[in-house]
Amino acid sequence: MSEQLRQLIFDTQAAFRAKPEAAQATFRSSSRLTDGFRSEVSIRQHRLAADEPAALGGADSGPNPVELVLAALGTCQEITYRAYATAMGIPLDSVSVELVGDIDLRGFFAVDESVRSGYQNIRGTVNIESSASEADLQKLRAVVDAHCPVLDILTNKVPVSLNLSIKSAKAA
Amino acid sequence: MSEQLRQLIFDTQAAFRAKPEAAQATFRSSSRLTDGFRSEVSIRQHRLAADEPAALGGADSGPNPVELVLAALGTCQEITYRAYATAMGIPLDSVSVELVGDIDLRGFFAVDESVRSGYQNIRGTVNIESSASEADLQKLRAVVDAHCPVLDILTNKVPVSLNLSIKSAKAA
Repeated sequence: MSEQLRQLIFDTQAAFRAKPEAAQATFRSSSRLTDGFRSEVSIRQHRLAADEPAALGGADSGPNPVELVLAALGTCQEITYRAYATAMGIPLDSVSVELVGDIDLRGFFAVDESVRSGYQNIRGTVNIESSASEADLQKLRAVVDAHCPVLDILTNKVPVSLNLSIKSAKAA
Repeated sequence: MSEQLRQLIFDTQAAFRAKPEAAQATFRSSSRLTDGFRSEVSIRQHRLAADEPAALGGADSGPNPVELVLAALGTCQEITYRAYATAMGIPLDSVSVELVGDIDLRGFFAVDESVRSGYQNIRGTVNIESSASEADLQKLRAVVDAHCPVLDILTNKVPVSLNLSIKSAKAA
């Protein structure tokens, strides 16, 4: 796929350069809580479920939301490594990512309002197997980290606005 | 589960108040790129896959990483609504979330370095069905938004540090 993908990337860049409005993309998800803390998600034709481990009150029928954040970052790094290795003509035999995130649960549980509810930090390792020089791979890494969407989303602020829509239910 | 969950939340809060070090939690994910842009993720005993749609060079065998970010936010909101509705004794018959995120793909494709690669913004609707008063539900919403871990992760910065580990492969 390498030559085809390289061409797709160059064609896409040319198209977006010529017509910036063609680069405006919208992504969507739709989810619903079912039993306990289990939530079922629809993303186009794809389905997944989140839940909490037993210690946090769930049935552990899926990863929890903060684990999904790590999954998003790891997969985004990997895809971005393959995309830019291909575009830059740098060989890349494999890429895998291990991530660890620390949360002080006093934030979520409202035990200490000075403690944030999300990750205090995320750290990890990107493992790559390649015949390229160390210098080329460090160049690749810099380009990847400058263009990886989920890395940007996590390390910078994203404005989020949520409307609350209430449907009155009869009291039981 | 409501009474049981309420007790679990109160017991957990008491435990963390008494022993803050018990609240320090670590979450992990491990992923590996397979074919094309498909990446397979392991989170404890759970498995999921990410991929890109055809227009972005993938085989569309799963949601993409930025869609996983939306899934994380939607499910986190829902779980946090149920947890705090239970703790606060506010009835909650159902909760579902629709999210939309906008990305200018000139960022990811390095067409314009002034364009961020991640979401420009995320917006959406939280739908709840409840017999509680509007005032109680607005109070619930404020508590949820102040304690939802993924909302905090997205709207505030998270420090991320990634090591690159290189394994030399023989040139083909």
